[in-house]
Amino acid sequence: MTDAEVAALDAADPLAHFRDAFELPEGLIYLDGNSLGPLPKATRVRLSEVVAGEWGRSLIRGWNDHDWIGAPRRVGAKLAPLIGAESDEVICADSTSANIYKLAVAAMQARPGRAMVLSEPGDFPTDLYMLEGAVRTLGEGRRLELREGSEIEAALSPDVALLVLCHAHYKTARIRDMVRLTAAAQAVGALVLWDLSHSAGVLDVDLNGANADLAVGCGYKYLNGGPGAPAFLFVARRHQADLVSPLSGWMGHAAPFDFPDAYAPAEGIGRFACGTPPILGLAALECGVELTARAGKSALRAKAGLLTDLFIRRVEAGPAGGELALATPRETAERGGHVSWRHPDAFAIVQAMIARGVIGDFRAPDIARFGFSPMPLSFAETARAADILGEVVSTRAYDDPRYRQRSAVT
Amino acid sequence: MTDAEVAALDAADPLAHFRDAFELPEGLIYLDGNSLGPLPKATRVRLSEVVAGEWGRSLIRGWNDHDWIGAPRRVGAKLAPLIGAESDEVICADSTSANIYKLAVAAMQARPGRAMVLSEPGDFPTDLYMLEGAVRTLGEGRRLELREGSEIEAALSPDVALLVLCHAHYKTARIRDMVRLTAAAQAVGALVLWDLSHSAGVLDVDLNGANADLAVGCGYKYLNGGPGAPAFLFVARRHQADLVSPLSGWMGHAAPFDFPDAYAPAEGIGRFACGTPPILGLAALECGVELTARAGKSALRAKAGLLTDLFIRRVEAGPAGGELALATPRETAERGGHVSWRHPDAFAIVQAMIARGVIGDFRAPDIARFGFSPMPLSFAETARAADILGEVVSTRAYDDPRYRQRSAVT
Repeated sequence: MTDAEVAALDAADPLAHFRDAFELPEGLIYLDGNSLGPLPKATRVRLSEVVAGEWGRSLIRGWNDHDWIGAPRRVGAKLAPLIGAESDEVICADSTSANIYKLAVAAMQARPGRAMVLSEPGDFPTDLYMLEGAVRTLGEGRRLELREGSEIEAALSPDVALLVLCHAHYKTARIRDMVRLTAAAQAVGALVLWDLSHSAGVLDVDLNGANADLAVGCGYKYLNGGPGAPAFLFVARRHQADLVSPLSGWMGHAAPFDFPDAYAPAEGIGRFACGTPPILGLAALECGVELTARAGKSALRAKAGLLTDLFIRRVEAGPAGGELALATPRETAERGGHVSWRHPDAFAIVQAMIARGVIGDFRAPDIARFGFSPMPLSFAETARAADILGEVVSTRAYDDPRYRQRSAVT
Repeated sequence: MTDAEVAALDAADPLAHFRDAFELPEGLIYLDGNSLGPLPKATRVRLSEVVAGEWGRSLIRGWNDHDWIGAPRRVGAKLAPLIGAESDEVICADSTSANIYKLAVAAMQARPGRAMVLSEPGDFPTDLYMLEGAVRTLGEGRRLELREGSEIEAALSPDVALLVLCHAHYKTARIRDMVRLTAAAQAVGALVLWDLSHSAGVLDVDLNGANADLAVGCGYKYLNGGPGAPAFLFVARRHQADLVSPLSGWMGHAAPFDFPDAYAPAEGIGRFACGTPPILGLAALECGVELTARAGKSALRAKAGLLTDLFIRRVEAGPAGGELALATPRETAERGGHVSWRHPDAFAIVQAMIARGVIGDFRAPDIARFGFSPMPLSFAETARAADILGEVVSTRAYDDPRYRQRSAVT
C-alpha cells in the first residue's frame, strides 16, 4: 500500500475527528490502548468538576444531588449499546476479577447438580485464578477444567455448570464464536460467561444477538476509563432473578438505607453491586464510555479491522516480514483490535520500539503486542509504526542491553 | 461552657492549622466527615497531576514510572501507623465489603472444623450481608449467628471460626473493647476480624497492641479519601502465610506478569489484592491518608474526645436537652468520633439542620447523627452546631413538610 493509499484511508475515515477528543503526547504513536486507553479531554474537565465542584462543595449531598448513587447503573446503561445489551442488563462495579467471581459463584449455585467449570488454558490469567478461587470456595467436589479451544465443544457435558471464555484473546486477539459456543453450552444446560475485556469498545459485540447469559469486561482498555477503572458485568434479564451474588454487599440490597440486618437482593441488575461505588473512577469511566458509544460499535469494529489489516500487511511486506511470526489470525473477522508477533527477542523489540516513540507491550514469553484503538489512531501512524517495527527488527536495533532491563510491569 | 472557654479550646488546639488543608464551603458546619470526609486541598492538585500528567502523558508507562503498581501497598504502609499496624500488614484495595468477604472466607477455611461465624445484630449492615454471602458460598453447615454485645463472650465456643465486630458502632459510636474481645475469641481458637470504618483516622487504634488478627476499614470517612475511596485490610504478619483470599486475582499472584495459568499467592499482604488497582481512587486516598497520618492518631483521638464532649454537654444543657435522648456512650473513652441522638423526628431534624448550614445525617429509624472530624472542625463550630440543634428541636422548626421528603440516600 502506497503512502497515498494510506492517506486516502485517513481522508475517508469517519472516526478521524475522534483523535482530537484525546490528549496524547506530540509525536508518540500509542499502540497500547488495549492495555490502557488514552485520556479523553472531556475526562480531565469532568474529573476536576467532580472533585472540586461535587465532592468539595456538595460533600455528602453529592450522593443525591449529583446522583452518585446512580452511577453504576447509569454508566452501565450507557455502555450497553456497545455490547448488544439492554440498559438494565449492565452495571459498572468492582474489578473484572471480582465480577468473574460473583457471576461464576452465582452461576454454579444456580446449577447445583453440576461440578465442572470449563475454560481454556492460556486465557487471561486472572479469569482462571478467579475461577480457581470460586471452585475452592464452593468446595463439594466442584472443579475447574481447562481444555484447548478446539476441544471445548467436545468437553461440554451435563456435568458442566459454567463455560468461561475470553471473547477476544489477550495475546493473540483471536475471537471465539460467541453464537456457536453459547448455543453449544446451553444445549447441555450450562451457562456461559464471556470476558469482553479485549472486545468491548473495539468489536461489534452482540450479547443478546448471541443469546448470551453472562459477561464481564474491563473499563480501562478500549473504553478509555482510566488506570484501574471500574469494570462492568452483564446478566441477561432472564437470569437476573435466579442469580444471587456471593459478594452480597449493601449496594446490592433491595433497601440499603433501611439498614436491616438481613440481606435481601435488589430486583434486577442492581443486586450485582457490592460496596460503595467508586465515584472518581466511575466519573472517568463515564466520559470514556460516552465517547466510545458516540463512535458506535460498527464504526469502531470496521476501523479496527482496517488498521490491523494495514499493520499486518505492511510489516509482512517490509524488511522484517520473514522474522516475525504472526500470532494473530490473518482473517479480519477472526481478529480483535490488536496484532501480536512472536519473536524470541520480543521483549527487547518492544523496548526498542518504545525508545523510538511507538508504544506497544510485551506478553511473556515471546509476544510483541500492538493495539489499535480506533478512535485516537490514524492509518498514517499505523503505517509508520509498521515501518519502525520493520527497521528495528531487520537492523537488529533491539540487540542492546538497554532494551533487556525488566520493570515491575511489562 | 462559655464562649470564651470555647475560644480558649480553639486557641490551644494543636490540630487547628489542619482546617486550612481542606476545601470547605464558606459558612457550612460539616458534621458528616464520618460518612464522607471533606476534600483536602492537596487532593485536588494531586488528582489533576495524576490525570493530566501521569495518565495523559505517561499512559501505560505510568504503572512503572509513577509506581501505580505499588500504590495498594504504599498507601497501606502510610495508613499503618494510624491503626497500630506494621507497614507490611496493610493493603488498600477493593471495598470494605469485598475485604470482609475475602478475610471471612480465608479465616473460615483456615479453621475447617468450626461452623460458626459470630457477630452482632445492628452492626453495619454490609458486614452482616457479606458474612451471609461468605457462609452461603462455603456451605457445609457453616452459619452466621448474631448475639447482642453483652452475650458475645458467652457465645464464644470451639465451634466459632471467626468473630466479626465493628470497633466503633456506626450509629451509636460505642467502642468495643478490642483487647478483651480479641483475647476471649483467641482463647477458644477463633480468629477476630475488626471493622475499623468508624475508627481509623479518629481513634487511637492499636491493632498489634491488641494482638489483633484481621481488620478492614473504609477510606472515605475519617481518612478523607473521597467518595467511594478504596478500602483497606489488615492481616497480622503471623497469619499472612496461612490465609488465602477467595478473590484470588492476578494482582495477588506471586508473579502476575509471568501470566501462568495457575494461581500462586504472593508472599505477605500482597496476596490479598485482587484486580487491577484503581489508580484515581488510590491517589485521592493517598492524599487523605498522608494528611491524617501527619496529624497522628493520638492528637486526633484527643480532639475527637473534646469535640464530642463539648457537643453533648452543650446540647444537653441547652433548650432541647430534655427532648433528645443520647444514643452515644457518655464516657469519652467508650465513644468514637460521632454523637447520635434519638428522636422520633430525627429525619426532619437533620433536614432542618442542613437547611441551617449544619450537615449531619439520619440513620433509620430514629437517629440524628453528627460526626466530628478532628482536622477540619473547630470547637466554635461545634458549639454553634449544638446551639442550632437546640433551637431547631426546642422551637419545633423541623416540623415542616419540606423536611420530610426522603431522598435515595439518607
